[in-house]
Amino acid sequence: MEQKTILTQKLEYVKGILAIAEKYDHAVNVLSYDQETICPIESMEEQGEVWAFLNNQSYKLIKEPAFIEAAEYLFEHREELEEFDRVMAEQLHRNYLQSKNVTPELQHEFMLTFNRAFVNWSKAREASDYSLFAASLKEVADVNRRMIELRGADASGKTAYDTLLDDYERGMTSEVLDEVFGACKERLIPLLEKIQKSSKEIRTDFLSRRVEDEQQARMAKWLLAQMGFNFDRGAITTSEHPFTAGMGRNDIRVTTHYYPDQFLSSMYSVIHEGGHALFDQNQPQKNYDHFIIGGKTLGMHESVSRFYENRIGRSEAFVHFVYPKVCEIFPQVMADVSEREFYEALNVVMPSLIRTEADEFTYTFHIIIRYEIEKALFAGEIKVEDIPAMWNRKYKEYLGIEPTSDRNGVLQDVHWTSGFGYFPTYAIGNFYNAMYYNRMKQEVDVDAAIREGNFAPVNSWMVGHVFAKADRLSPQEWIRDITGREFTPVDFLDYLEAKYSRIYEL
Amino acid sequence: MEQKTILTQKLEYVKGILAIAEKYDHAVNVLSYDQETICPIESMEEQGEVWAFLNNQSYKLIKEPAFIEAAEYLFEHREELEEFDRVMAEQLHRNYLQSKNVTPELQHEFMLTFNRAFVNWSKAREASDYSLFAASLKEVADVNRRMIELRGADASGKTAYDTLLDDYERGMTSEVLDEVFGACKERLIPLLEKIQKSSKEIRTDFLSRRVEDEQQARMAKWLLAQMGFNFDRGAITTSEHPFTAGMGRNDIRVTTHYYPDQFLSSMYSVIHEGGHALFDQNQPQKNYDHFIIGGKTLGMHESVSRFYENRIGRSEAFVHFVYPKVCEIFPQVMADVSEREFYEALNVVMPSLIRTEADEFTYTFHIIIRYEIEKALFAGEIKVEDIPAMWNRKYKEYLGIEPTSDRNGVLQDVHWTSGFGYFPTYAIGNFYNAMYYNRMKQEVDVDAAIREGNFAPVNSWMVGHVFAKADRLSPQEWIRDITGREFTPVDFLDYLEAKYSRIYEL
Repeated sequence: MEQKTILTQKLEYVKGILAIAEKYDHAVNVLSYDQETICPIESMEEQGEVWAFLNNQSYKLIKEPAFIEAAEYLFEHREELEEFDRVMAEQLHRNYLQSKNVTPELQHEFMLTFNRAFVNWSKAREASDYSLFAASLKEVADVNRRMIELRGADASGKTAYDTLLDDYERGMTSEVLDEVFGACKERLIPLLEKIQKSSKEIRTDFLSRRVEDEQQARMAKWLLAQMGFNFDRGAITTSEHPFTAGMGRNDIRVTTHYYPDQFLSSMYSVIHEGGHALFDQNQPQKNYDHFIIGGKTLGMHESVSRFYENRIGRSEAFVHFVYPKVCEIFPQVMADVSEREFYEALNVVMPSLIRTEADEFTYTFHIIIRYEIEKALFAGEIKVEDIPAMWNRKYKEYLGIEPTSDRNGVLQDVHWTSGFGYFPTYAIGNFYNAMYYNRMKQEVDVDAAIREGNFAPVNSWMVGHVFAKADRLSPQEWIRDITGREFTPVDFLDYLEAKYSRIYEL
Repeated sequence: MEQKTILTQKLEYVKGILAIAEKYDHAVNVLSYDQETICPIESMEEQGEVWAFLNNQSYKLIKEPAFIEAAEYLFEHREELEEFDRVMAEQLHRNYLQSKNVTPELQHEFMLTFNRAFVNWSKAREASDYSLFAASLKEVADVNRRMIELRGADASGKTAYDTLLDDYERGMTSEVLDEVFGACKERLIPLLEKIQKSSKEIRTDFLSRRVEDEQQARMAKWLLAQMGFNFDRGAITTSEHPFTAGMGRNDIRVTTHYYPDQFLSSMYSVIHEGGHALFDQNQPQKNYDHFIIGGKTLGMHESVSRFYENRIGRSEAFVHFVYPKVCEIFPQVMADVSEREFYEALNVVMPSLIRTEADEFTYTFHIIIRYEIEKALFAGEIKVEDIPAMWNRKYKEYLGIEPTSDRNGVLQDVHWTSGFGYFPTYAIGNFYNAMYYNRMKQEVDVDAAIREGNFAPVNSWMVGHVFAKADRLSPQEWIRDITGREFTPVDFLDYLEAKYSRIYEL
């Protein structure tokens, strides 16, 4: 009884502190969002300082000895807690281990390194000169290694790179990825060759026809509304790079951009970000009460956004549904384009240099290339200076094309300015959603529903199977819980093979 | 020497605390801005709580006994401080006196009253039923009276209403306003009669022609750019009600709205808010270092926004400059409209029920009516229940028209949900700018510059004379410093008489 009371007291204390931290985090989220969408250039630095100040206020709360003591107590007694509280205790323990030797000062130093890397990357990219970035990139890798060392026991037995992978996708290892990406290369390289030799001609001329911002904005709102995005609990605005961000429980925002000569760019970024937003808008509110909304991995999140973007958004059924609307809103584009031509243009396979513009088929190669470079770097097989050559060689090898500059090569992504191990989650997301798409099909006639623009049965299945436990399970448990099977890339590879063989009449 | 050291220490301590408070305030500003522009409806409450939490963190800092002690020490030794520090000490002392007996709990209670009043006002307005708001309005008046009582000595000798006036416009009294508004009525009532009897016909048919949002947005940006708004230190977005807000030193934002059948509404709100923004963007950066940016009164700020909106924006010179651009951006509106017709339409005099839509000439009556009601209420001459009848009677008396409902009558403004004494500042702003416009004309050929769209000499004069000392002087000192004369409405009345006599060919 006594024991029970202490546990309850600690639980209430911990939740009380987390509720205050949540308030700071909410403000921090709004400030970040504002910086990426509206904040004028000359105010960036000041607002960044305000951001850092509030972020630090939140960080200090959970670094207080009394808080750590209580949180660790909960973890030690986790078996006595109800499920959601237990998950919370486990997450707090994990966070504690990750940062227990990182003092606020050290954390600050790391942030400065990342900031400096970002600045130098921006300059290097502008000048298309990797040499301006190399020293910073080495610093980032060193910080990553140091962060792992500081954890001590926690990381023992794992390679440094596996620890990084685990940070982004809990439980993922390079052993698994080697196997998975090996299977991808084995099947996709020969398939890509066949596609490229195919005599099939796909029209893409109309994709660069001019579309006004206002038309694109109308389309963006219409698409989100069809998908089931809740505008009372979210918003859409514009930013240079599209993203999704949650401010608080009832405020999930997506952004897009409008390029007059690339209307598909906005349409499909909206569907992609709309997927992220549906995931966030439909998480159980109970997760918030237990502060466990951070349990989702990046791979899980990408699986959902890519499910909507590719599995739904680039399907024949979806094209059948949206074609009349696209003709209505963009008449100047679509006057001489048939439904079939539109579908094929959305799925044209075309090796290209920029990851974010890659088609669904070649996308995986962009990830494999980055993965192989990161792994080699952390294994000590290459040095930071060797990256551009390896990058270019691999693009040639897998996609048959070579960057013409550092800018459209090794400097294209921002990710490495704050660490390594992120990229694989993008591909992992595709493997997950292919697995659960196959499971979903057993219960939902996806194509029939989507052909009519009826997202309800699909969304409802996603809520019940994919979203419900994402914060409480490891990725391995989660995909097993949804599909009854172990993680595999086979479903994804089968899907690509079937779809693109049909399109390219192989 | 010893003395000096203590003073320096206290000064540094006070500034250190204010710098932290500034960080909270910056976040609070961004949160407010976000709520008025983007925040979705379902998240308003949560974000409001975050706002209140951070606001309270800031409030607590300056209510700490150690801070008050140090700030009061600075005030006692203010003669030993350099000018900007002295002004800071005086402002802190004034704030201290205003709120010294207001505990954070009491402050919270007042805020709840205002929030409740806002909710009830919204409902009453929606239902166009004053009786739903009356009880709340009485509560607001009671809170206002209680806040004054709590100050004790500070307010002694002043009537309650004069204390309220002083809060919004330091040094202003009902004695002065009675005289000033008396002069207005004496000259403007007969002039309005003449205008209404005039046979002059002014075209307004084209003002309701349809203009797309995108066209209006283009115009808004162009106008701000011409005025000298710095887009690197500010932004323009949209909101239901246009406003200007500063996030921090280098981030002053304006908003506008787009009504398809009222393009002038956006154009002139942009010029008005652009005026506020120029004032804020061009305040000496040194003011920030001494935390004295709050020294400007509302009357000073309105004088600047109305200077740009009316004295510049509705002048023949400005119309000559913008006419070709208006024709270019809104061709469908302007095809059959001459420059002169456009000028006259911008200056048509038409008694109307809604203050925010009033023309430059009749605007002052809207303020006088509110002033006379507020004054009577606080003098105990009327009760809250008597306000609608008095409102309607005065509209009939001064403008010859009568509200057809509470919504277009007594319930139209939000201001009374948070207190009394604000409205007069709008009219006071017009009196100020008429005075300094006359002074400026002695040095700057305003019309010649504006005819060419050259805002530089006008802005530069404003910076040097109107903006420079606004935070350091009382309004009385400030207008004397600019013009060498005492506050008077005569310049404004002369201006109206001359301008409208010409337009209406009296």
